[in-house]
Formats: sequence, structure tokens, C-alpha cells
Amino acid sequence: MDSIITYVRSEHSRYIDELTQYLAVPSISADDDTDGNIQRCAQMTADFLTAAGMHNAKVNKTARHPVVTAEWLGAPGAPTIIIYGHYDVQPVDPLELWDRPPFEAYVKNDRIIARGSSDDKGQLFIHIKAVEAVLKKTGKLPINVKFLLEGEEEIGSPSLPAFLREHKKELTGDIIVISDTDMHGPGIPAITYGLKGLAYMELEVIGPDHDLHSGEYGGAVANPVEILARMIATVKDEHGRIQIPGFYDKVIPISPLEKASIAKVPFDEPAYLKRLDVEELWGEAPYTPRERTWARPTFEVNGMWGGFIGKGAKTVLPSKAGAKISMRLVANQEPAEIEDMAEKYFTSIAPKSVKVKVIRHHGGRPVMVPLDNPFLQTASRALTDAFGHEPYYKRTGGSIPIVADFKTILGLDSLLIGFSLSDARAHSPNENFYLPSFFTGIEASIRLMYYLAK
Amino acid sequence: MDSIITYVRSEHSRYIDELTQYLAVPSISADDDTDGNIQRCAQMTADFLTAAGMHNAKVNKTARHPVVTAEWLGAPGAPTIIIYGHYDVQPVDPLELWDRPPFEAYVKNDRIIARGSSDDKGQLFIHIKAVEAVLKKTGKLPINVKFLLEGEEEIGSPSLPAFLREHKKELTGDIIVISDTDMHGPGIPAITYGLKGLAYMELEVIGPDHDLHSGEYGGAVANPVEILARMIATVKDEHGRIQIPGFYDKVIPISPLEKASIAKVPFDEPAYLKRLDVEELWGEAPYTPRERTWARPTFEVNGMWGGFIGKGAKTVLPSKAGAKISMRLVANQEPAEIEDMAEKYFTSIAPKSVKVKVIRHHGGRPVMVPLDNPFLQTASRALTDAFGHEPYYKRTGGSIPIVADFKTILGLDSLLIGFSLSDARAHSPNENFYLPSFFTGIEASIRLMYYLAK
Repeated sequence: MDSIITYVRSEHSRYIDELTQYLAVPSISADDDTDGNIQRCAQMTADFLTAAGMHNAKVNKTARHPVVTAEWLGAPGAPTIIIYGHYDVQPVDPLELWDRPPFEAYVKNDRIIARGSSDDKGQLFIHIKAVEAVLKKTGKLPINVKFLLEGEEEIGSPSLPAFLREHKKELTGDIIVISDTDMHGPGIPAITYGLKGLAYMELEVIGPDHDLHSGEYGGAVANPVEILARMIATVKDEHGRIQIPGFYDKVIPISPLEKASIAKVPFDEPAYLKRLDVEELWGEAPYTPRERTWARPTFEVNGMWGGFIGKGAKTVLPSKAGAKISMRLVANQEPAEIEDMAEKYFTSIAPKSVKVKVIRHHGGRPVMVPLDNPFLQTASRALTDAFGHEPYYKRTGGSIPIVADFKTILGLDSLLIGFSLSDARAHSPNENFYLPSFFTGIEASIRLMYYLAK
Repeated sequence: MDSIITYVRSEHSRYIDELTQYLAVPSISADDDTDGNIQRCAQMTADFLTAAGMHNAKVNKTARHPVVTAEWLGAPGAPTIIIYGHYDVQPVDPLELWDRPPFEAYVKNDRIIARGSSDDKGQLFIHIKAVEAVLKKTGKLPINVKFLLEGEEEIGSPSLPAFLREHKKELTGDIIVISDTDMHGPGIPAITYGLKGLAYMELEVIGPDHDLHSGEYGGAVANPVEILARMIATVKDEHGRIQIPGFYDKVIPISPLEKASIAKVPFDEPAYLKRLDVEELWGEAPYTPRERTWARPTFEVNGMWGGFIGKGAKTVLPSKAGAKISMRLVANQEPAEIEDMAEKYFTSIAPKSVKVKVIRHHGGRPVMVPLDNPFLQTASRALTDAFGHEPYYKRTGGSIPIVADFKTILGLDSLLIGFSLSDARAHSPNENFYLPSFFTGIEASIRLMYYLAK
């Protein structure tokens, strides 16, 4: 393996040239692709895979943007990994905040700057260059590898679940490998083993059929804004514990092993407070902030409205009020069940003086890979040896619905080993990828293949 | 007096002609009067007063729109009333909802329809025609009468307090008479003896210095919308009683006499519920809805906002949230004291995880004329004899700040005897005045002068 690593280190400038070429295609999935950029980027992805030595690189049509696949299956008996990534990128506005044109990649302060550099072209490119190096130096891979690279991640992967169902037979394997998350910091890798699910609903409280004069009717008629406030206020008790009956029933408790693992990840509370400009944190007792954001389900009001919200004073008793509510779920909570519980709860606590309407939005299932999962252990060793630092085990409060789909449709767990940094400005102007992470990422990907073979 | 009444009844068509002429002047106070309509209307008001036999009719300049005054002081030893009203009117938009041009008055179904017909030209005209009839038939009035007719009521009477202070010496008297409120219904007079005061504030709860990803931060950081909801939820207990310390300290309790008087006023709860399309009322126990809206102070959230309130779903932990709050006050609550208490309350209950900002808006003092006030008793008799039906004694949840100014600056109580109906559409298209109320109102005003002389 040492010779492969040596080879990789000699190829850095070619990798940057090729990545620059890849980043030059504006594969913005929110566009309708009348200019053919998505198609062109899909084809370029397939060409990179073929050039790397992968077999059967294909641009597969879907209802919208293509899925690129390729495989190398010459290691019978060895494990099979499916490397997932996405070649589509976010839109670039506000364009005026970019220092240079977003698709003309350039290197500054050890970072390559362009839309898609971190999210996710640069990260999926790591794995293409890893298989390329191994195939070039040894003529074969130590394990079987399949690539599954989509063009719709930034618009919610609408075609992918159908694609997974249709291609279930070709997509057999042992684990999905995804590099679309963050490292802990420069030189410090991380493995994300838990993603939250999501239940999202809108709650509307309806009172009188039109806005009333607050003087004439105030005191006689229920005020929907106040009723909604009272309803929301009951959701959490004084310890921040959610009172919706059954809400915690299926939650997998934080194990002592996990508690210790979370506690190991440095968390600088004073810096965190300062960055957010708040004096004190707030949340469910007795959990730490990290435990709460990573491993405990949450309930947040994302927005609330009702009555007069313009400038100045208007004395109105509003006809209705509404709130947008998201609940982040942890394994094994089911979004539909949680939505049922929440709807039942709000309907049951509403006084007869108002009507309650609930609108449900799209949700997603939570994901958790057990900490003692052997693939996770192997990935940990690969990252440690490549970066010279043990990875931190992270969960995230965010949701990546497609990871739940991999589990549900393909029956596969995912290994989330991301190489981006938290200041990579994904989705923002001047998106960038820290090159030392990119280069060492290739080495980590190579090590992962060899370690998995054993 | 019978001959005066007979005379009034013979003059109805002239009154309508003159009122039509008066209503033809578009005296919209919100306008800047570049077209001179306000000025013209003020002069016309003064001319009507002079024609009625009043002395010293004057158009007094103020910072904005003029105040018209006149007097008849030939009854030494007899009481002096000051008749207050306003010759300005509301804007007319939406113009397309008027059946005919708003300043071309016409009569339909016993109603004269035009902007200002009820609010308040038609009502102040009642008193001008009353003194005119008495002076024309007897050459004198039984009491002393002053008129004080402003042109800024619909824009909050900004110049009137200063005018009252400057003219305090000319504005001595025993009672202010105001006809700018409603009757109970056709043929059923009402005396409004209580107006609520107002304290209005904006409450802002500030959390993190920018909107956060609700997945990444939810559960760790206090959500300002939820904190605000929790703060608002604590304001009233389960009996609807306001929990702000000291809030009720100065409230004059509802006396048994008043309770009985309020209970006498018909209140059709099923019809009220149906009209508002609500199933149940809500408010402070153990008071009746009428007692709550008329005689108990209230707390209403007029509007609340925070976070994402657009269409669809966005998972944000909002940086801040705000609420507009009005408290309607009853005698003897002081707006500034109540605002202090509310501010102190909200600041004290806010957790350290957020900051609280309070912005105060303009408020006003409550007004109450004791039910046993002799002027009120006399007015009751005048109305009873004119309409053939005893008046109902009403309070209102609304506020007319200038009435408090009369008390504070001039030291005078007000007698609110209005002749409008609740379907007069004041401030709306097709504003109208029910002519039987107008004609009988003139007789009531005449009776009031004679009864007060005794």
C-alpha cells in the first residue's frame, strides 16, 4: 500500500487540474437543464469513472436528472461497498458575494474555491481518485466497489428512491459509503453514525371568522394567538421534556458507551455561546447540549404568525394564528406515528372556543448505525492511519432522507465519512474545500478498501 | 316645549336638505387639505352655528385642522354644557364598494347614506338643530351651551389637547355632551358611561443573533418563539385572570348596582356566537361576557410573529420573535403604571437564554362616569321621554382618548349619548344614519337642555 500512497502524493497537481475541470460544469440541479449542463456533468462523471478503471460506467436516465453508476466486481468473496455521492450543486446566488466566478475554481490558502468543491463533487472525487490509484498501481481492487452518483441531491433526491427500487438487484452490497458530511476540524476526521428524522407540521388555530376589534370583543372571545401560545407552551415541561403522549416510547436511549463517545468530542460551550450571542443554553434535562442536538428528539417552532404584525399599533383580536413545527426524530421513532401523536395532542388540548387544523409536510426517518458496527470500526482505523488522529463519532441534528431510503429500500447501513470542514461555506458564496483534507481523504479511502478486505 | 317639538317635526325635510349640503364637503382629516375641504367644512359648521342663533361662532386655527367653537351664555345660574363633536370624516376607500358617490347623500329605507352621516356630522348636527329650534321658538336657551367641534378626531385628535389647555378659561362648564356612540338598537337609546383605557406595547424576545438550522441547534439553544409563547401563556391563569402582579390593584370593582344594570342590557349569546362563527366564549371567570368586555380590564395579543411564516416548510430556529400586546384598562388603572408592571413582569419571567425588549406605544386613560351622576340621570329621562324607551347603560371595550383628556385637562365628565346604530357602517362603504334616530335625537337634545335647567 505504501507505493500506492507514494503514487497518490505525486499526483496532487493532476488531481487539482481534473477537479477544476469537473467543477467548471455548472451542474445546478434546481435548473431545468435546457443548457445540458447536468447531462454534460453526468457524462463527465462517467468518463472519470471509466478513466479510473471502473467497469460499466453508465449515465442512467430518471424522471429528471441522471444517476451515474459504475462497478468493479473482481473480488469475489470480499465485501462490496456502494459509494454514494452527488454531482449536482446548489444555485450560486447571490452571485455578487463571490470573489470570483463560482465555476472557475482557484486555489487560495490551501483551499480550492468553487461551487461544488465541498458539496459534493470534491468529496466524491476522492473516491474516484482512490480506486484509480489502486487500479493503476495494482490492476485490481481489494474489494468490490459500486458507484451510485446522483444529480438531484440538492433538490431532495426526488428520483432516487424509484431508482433504488428499480435497480435493487444491481445495488446489492454490504455498506453504503458517503462522503457528504464534515470532519471535526482540520486534520481531525469524524464519522457520522446518526442522522435525525423529521416530522413537519403546520398548526392553525381558528377563532372568530374575521379579525375583531380588540376593545369591543377582547375578554369575551378566545384569542387564537394566545390559545396557540398556550398550546405550544404546554409541549415542554420545565425540564424541556416533550409532553406529547408516546413521543419518547420508541426512542433508543443513549447507551453508556455512546454517552462516553459523545463526551469525548470537544465542545467549547463559552465559544458556542459567544458565537450565537446568547447567555445561556436551554434544553432537555439532564442531557448535555451535544446529547440533545445529536441523540435526543426535539420539537421546534420554526415560525409563528397571527394578527397584526406591521409597524405601529393596531388593536385587533386576530381571527387565526398558525405555527410551523418541526420535530427531529431519533431511531426508532417513526415520522407518521409522531405526527399522529402530535396531531392528537394538539387537537385534544385545544379549548372548544377555537378550531384546530393540522397540515402535514414531508418528513423522513431517522438513521443510526450502531457504534459497534464492524464497518464503522474499520473505517475508524482507516481514518486514524490516514490522518494520524482518531475520528470523532458524531451524530447530527440534521436529516439526510436518502440515507433512510438506503436502509429501507436496499437494507443497507451507511458509513458517513465526510471530509469537508464546517467553514467550507457549502450552499454559500465562496464554497471551498480544504486541500489537505482532499488529499488525505484519498489515502483514507484507499486504506478503507484494504482494511475492509481483511 | 310641545310647540318646539311640533316645530321640529315640521322641519324634517329642511334638516335633511341642510345635512345633505353638510355631508357634501369631503372633510377627510387624513388628507392634507390642499383642496381646502377641511377649512370649508369648518366654516360651514360655524355658519350653521351662527344660523342656529349661537354666538361667537369661530374657526380656530390649530397646528393642523381647525376647531370650531360657539357659545350661548344667556342663562346665568343655569348649568353649562359643552357639546363636543367632530366635523372631519374617515377616508372613503375602497371607493368601488360604495353604491353611490360617498359625498352625494341620498335617502333609502329611512337612512341617509353618505360618509360622515353617522360619524359624526349627522350626530353633531342633531345638537345644532336642537339649539336652533329652541332659540327660534323661544329666543333663548334654558341653559348655557358651548360647542367644541374638532376636525381631527379620525386622525387621533393630535391638536385638541393643546387647544383645551390654551382655552381652558373659555371651556369651563358642568359636563361635556358627546354624540359619537351607538344606541342599543332602533328606538332604544343608550348612555355610554364607561370607556376603556389603553396600554399598548410590543414585546420582543431575542435569541441567537441569526436564524439557526433547527436540526443542528434545536434542543441546545432556546427558541425565541417558544419562549415568547411560554411567556404569553403565563399571563392568564386557567380562569382567565391576568397574573401580572398589581394589575388589578386599582380596578374599581363592579358594584351590585352596575352588575344589575349590565344584566338588564339584552345579550343574545347564541346569536353572538353564530355571528363570530365560534362554538364557545372564553374569558375571565366568574364574569359574564358583557361584564368582561365592558367593565373588566383585558389583555390581548394583537399580533405575534417569529421565524419562517411563508408557504411550505423551512427548518429554522428563529433568531427572534415578537408580539403586539394591548391591555384595555378600566377606572382607575393608569396606563403608565400598567405598562411598568407588564414590562417588569415579562422581563422577570424571561429565562436567561434570551433577551427581552419592550417598546411602548401611545396609550390612554380609562373613563367612567358613576351611574349615580345627576347629569346621567337627567339624560336618561330626556332619552326616555323622547324615544319612549329607557336607555340602556353601556360601557364599551373601546377607547376614546379625548374623553380622558376632557377629564384630565378640563376636569369635566362626559355624557356619551350616541344616536348611531351598530349597522351604521361607520368607517366603511355606505355609511348611513337611521333618520328616525336623527329626528328623535333632536327632540332628546331639546329635552336634555330643559331637564338640565331644572
